[in-house]
Amino acid sequence: MSGADWVARHGLIRFCEGVEKGRSLFENELRKLSIPVMDVFLEDGRFVPAGFEFSGERLVESESVSGVRRVFPNLYPAIGSKVLKASGFGRPFVVGKRVAVMFSGGPAAGGHNVLVGLKMALGVDNTLLGVRDGPKGLLAGRLFEIGESDIVRIINTGGFAFMGTDRTKIKTDDQFERVKVVCRDQRIDSLVVVGGDDSNTNAAVLAEYLFQNVHADGRGVQVLGVPKTIDGDLQVGDLLPISFGFDTATKIYSELVGNILQDTLSSRKYWHFVKLMGRSATQVGLEVALQTRPTVAFISEEISERRFSLSQIVDIICRAVARRAARGMNYGVVLVPEGLIEFIPEMKTLISELNEFIASSSKLLLDLNTMAEKKEFIYEKISADSAKLMASLPDEFEKMLLLDRDSHGNLQVSQIPTEKLLIEMVSVRLHEMKADPDLFIGQREDQIDLTPEEVERFLESKFSTNSHFFGYEGRCGTPTRFDAAYTFNLGLLVGSLALTGKTGYLVAINALNRGGQALAIPLTGLIHVEHRYGKDEFVIEKALVKMDSPAFKFFIGSREHWATEDCSASPGPRQLWGPVSSQLPMLIALNHGYTSLDFDMGKERKILPG
Amino acid sequence: MSGADWVARHGLIRFCEGVEKGRSLFENELRKLSIPVMDVFLEDGRFVPAGFEFSGERLVESESVSGVRRVFPNLYPAIGSKVLKASGFGRPFVVGKRVAVMFSGGPAAGGHNVLVGLKMALGVDNTLLGVRDGPKGLLAGRLFEIGESDIVRIINTGGFAFMGTDRTKIKTDDQFERVKVVCRDQRIDSLVVVGGDDSNTNAAVLAEYLFQNVHADGRGVQVLGVPKTIDGDLQVGDLLPISFGFDTATKIYSELVGNILQDTLSSRKYWHFVKLMGRSATQVGLEVALQTRPTVAFISEEISERRFSLSQIVDIICRAVARRAARGMNYGVVLVPEGLIEFIPEMKTLISELNEFIASSSKLLLDLNTMAEKKEFIYEKISADSAKLMASLPDEFEKMLLLDRDSHGNLQVSQIPTEKLLIEMVSVRLHEMKADPDLFIGQREDQIDLTPEEVERFLESKFSTNSHFFGYEGRCGTPTRFDAAYTFNLGLLVGSLALTGKTGYLVAINALNRGGQALAIPLTGLIHVEHRYGKDEFVIEKALVKMDSPAFKFFIGSREHWATEDCSASPGPRQLWGPVSSQLPMLIALNHGYTSLDFDMGKERKILPG
Repeated sequence: MSGADWVARHGLIRFCEGVEKGRSLFENELRKLSIPVMDVFLEDGRFVPAGFEFSGERLVESESVSGVRRVFPNLYPAIGSKVLKASGFGRPFVVGKRVAVMFSGGPAAGGHNVLVGLKMALGVDNTLLGVRDGPKGLLAGRLFEIGESDIVRIINTGGFAFMGTDRTKIKTDDQFERVKVVCRDQRIDSLVVVGGDDSNTNAAVLAEYLFQNVHADGRGVQVLGVPKTIDGDLQVGDLLPISFGFDTATKIYSELVGNILQDTLSSRKYWHFVKLMGRSATQVGLEVALQTRPTVAFISEEISERRFSLSQIVDIICRAVARRAARGMNYGVVLVPEGLIEFIPEMKTLISELNEFIASSSKLLLDLNTMAEKKEFIYEKISADSAKLMASLPDEFEKMLLLDRDSHGNLQVSQIPTEKLLIEMVSVRLHEMKADPDLFIGQREDQIDLTPEEVERFLESKFSTNSHFFGYEGRCGTPTRFDAAYTFNLGLLVGSLALTGKTGYLVAINALNRGGQALAIPLTGLIHVEHRYGKDEFVIEKALVKMDSPAFKFFIGSREHWATEDCSASPGPRQLWGPVSSQLPMLIALNHGYTSLDFDMGKERKILPG
Repeated sequence: MSGADWVARHGLIRFCEGVEKGRSLFENELRKLSIPVMDVFLEDGRFVPAGFEFSGERLVESESVSGVRRVFPNLYPAIGSKVLKASGFGRPFVVGKRVAVMFSGGPAAGGHNVLVGLKMALGVDNTLLGVRDGPKGLLAGRLFEIGESDIVRIINTGGFAFMGTDRTKIKTDDQFERVKVVCRDQRIDSLVVVGGDDSNTNAAVLAEYLFQNVHADGRGVQVLGVPKTIDGDLQVGDLLPISFGFDTATKIYSELVGNILQDTLSSRKYWHFVKLMGRSATQVGLEVALQTRPTVAFISEEISERRFSLSQIVDIICRAVARRAARGMNYGVVLVPEGLIEFIPEMKTLISELNEFIASSSKLLLDLNTMAEKKEFIYEKISADSAKLMASLPDEFEKMLLLDRDSHGNLQVSQIPTEKLLIEMVSVRLHEMKADPDLFIGQREDQIDLTPEEVERFLESKFSTNSHFFGYEGRCGTPTRFDAAYTFNLGLLVGSLALTGKTGYLVAINALNRGGQALAIPLTGLIHVEHRYGKDEFVIEKALVKMDSPAFKFFIGSREHWATEDCSASPGPRQLWGPVSSQLPMLIALNHGYTSLDFDMGKERKILPG
């Protein structure tokens, strides 16, 4: 190697070394990306905190309002059900305030930009503190000051790595007291909780607990929430169209599903069963279906509402497989929501019967040695329908139902590989169909109508499968421009609220197609109180897919056609630059009556100097 | 809903309908993307076919050259070992030529642009035919004309969907004869095979077979190869730095691995074991490691060369887990190449002993009913070392080794979930380490040196895992700009070769950092002939990761540090626009002494009018 070559190579090696720790070319350019900023946070080209006024909207009082009043004796009277909106009037001029921010629950793309926006809103005259490792870290008092250099490093990047997160739920008196002591010791004025429905419920309870008398002078600590969750099930009507992280996660999954659909069309020999993260709502599954047009997609909410049985679900897939095989198309993609099993009414019944029975008879069960004995014993105790359903499951899944239990004896439903269960049951059913085609093929409504030639093709067809689970891949990717902008503006918004002294609000931005409107929604208006087993349970209702929503209607109007033809499309890998970098999730645009997918949250601004 | 709202919504619904069949906003813009085109294919701003001249380079004759001469009696004397280069002189002016193009083997990103370039090179005076469904379709004569409107639709898109592909190997006399008949019937002058090492070996054999006397006038059919494979193991020294599809696949996997690394840093409680596609070489695994800096990554070639045992591999992971746990880091990412198992010498021995024994004793085995009996029977027949190794495997894997057999009685190695095998063995080993820490912790070289406090932290640590297999996600994604440009230019190149009447060449482009140099490599110079079991076997040697290559050296020089610190980086989602859309794979740049990652294949051109 010549001297010049050596230097050249050495230069590249040094460059490659420098890539470490988030310093790839991509990540370096990403930090320079301009972001749209809403007018309300700008004055003379500088970022400034907004003031707040009544938006004119009130949340509808829930039926449990009396419970809410009881549980939130300070907070409810203070904030009630009035929705506020950010405004250029009454901007706060505050100095010396100390605001702590904490991630709570699973990570989602954009969390870092919440911190960036928050820091910008607080400016140099106030202090931003970060909480390490979520609620667990808060209880341990693990706070640190977030400086300008941190902001420079984390802007526009994915994940929650900068502070970490965890799932500890703050619920005991002792824990509340610990939080109070930490806030007092660290002189915290406001606590911002970045989380989903559970974390924001917790934020409301904290807001009540810390309402007053935290500090020596009688002041309390404000608690404010920022709506995060890739599941997309934290929505409040037209006020909060979506939580952050959903757009990035669904675009990541959509690219992957789009790639796999393209693969099925290229190699033409596989059925891919793709499970998508999200145990409760199927907002993720619906958005991915709208973006990619898979062969078959299940929406848990529909399964529950129409009371589908497991056998019917298997049948839907088998019909698609058979009809396509009849036309020489031995491939396809089936989208399976992670929580499907729990939405099938008969499975829900079976699981709860098993949970109840196993919890009460675990000792008796232990005495039985073989699986056969255990099964026999259990079959007698559960209802006839449940026993029949259980017997219809493949052996290994039957075993899972009996054995995969957590420390409370409950089934760990999330551990059940639903995609594999369906593959196995579909295989068996197809085998039966081929063994006795006359039963399944014909002109009755429950039959498939095929020509003799098509029947022949179906009988000769193979059913080769692959399965996937996409989850962790989507939580910490680089945020889309939408999530980057949305979270930066949410950060400015929650920082503004902190400076104005408000407490107990969840921040939100709506009108995403026309400049955005920054809102503060009273958490007490979102919480339902249920008195169960002698104690109050608080919940923010999860936003499930609605059967009458435009997005769902579009889906059901199209799916027949997706099942028979090849309709796949893809939003592609997320683009941060160029002509297709600013699209909203389709279901938001459809459900909120927007006229296009483009979002508009104000003009693009360079966020950091230099 | 108001009338205006209805129209607005209806407009969006119509838009959403229109997305179907590859018509997303992204896909529509993608088709307009400009692509770099090499100067040699341009004249007066138009795309024109190049001429060819001797490049001055010859391939080194393989030791089996006498075998090559025997097997290729026509082809070898005609093309020998001289490498040609494309040139602006001697451009062909040909009309009426009919060129057929076929995909062969697994799909890879960029295949469609090969067709686009090929069509451009042939121009309006010649005909381009596509073969449906790969070699199987060729045998069935399933050809169709590729028109201008097809090109408009497929340009820059991923996958092989436009024509399909398959893995049929054309090897029997009858098959060769069928190809000859199809070529004669369809008046084919040239056949372009887009494939990996196997397909190009097949292309050479076809080139020989079709060398002459295919058509009534005595003319033969030219056969030309285009280097495709996501595995990246089709490389020819400095002449062919890489096959197409590798860049896209590795960037897709790298984004996913980068996201998961970010997730480990955010939620801080999981070890993710990621298996990456590619059974032979670990070029994919090495590139992904260079791009993302995982905690632990295995390179099969090193495992084989340094004769690592399975136990040593488990030990490497356990040391990383323990050392990190000692510092409170209960998370990490382990990259596992798909073919790892087959590269572990002792596993290779065990598998071949089992294959041999099971093939010869399958009837005896059938008579044995229980697993225990089968195992006992087999343990006596295999070597002591193999029996010991087998006994060390978790039960279910032991069972797989005995039962998961193809129709020839061979183990289906690709079915073994190596990532899960490692998770299970690491769990067991960690358990042993915790049960008897003094054995593992201390100052001997085979021990881990920890402070008492660190030991405590390790003993209390949890080892929670997830596993992933990334494969199909990466084959059919939208090509990176590099793959889009590389394949378009390869298409122009192979079209030029077709028009100049050459046969038996593999096209290649090198000097990827300085405008590109278009080459034609004689396939006969790449093929090794091995006389085995009384017949000739032809192979193009797979390009494995070399222990003395700069990329591998960079990897081994860094990995210790990756294992202990958090070093993750990510190339991000593939960008088609903007400042980071033109990077080569790191291992190409490192191994070929380039001074940066930017590629240069000429100036960007608009490919299609309008």
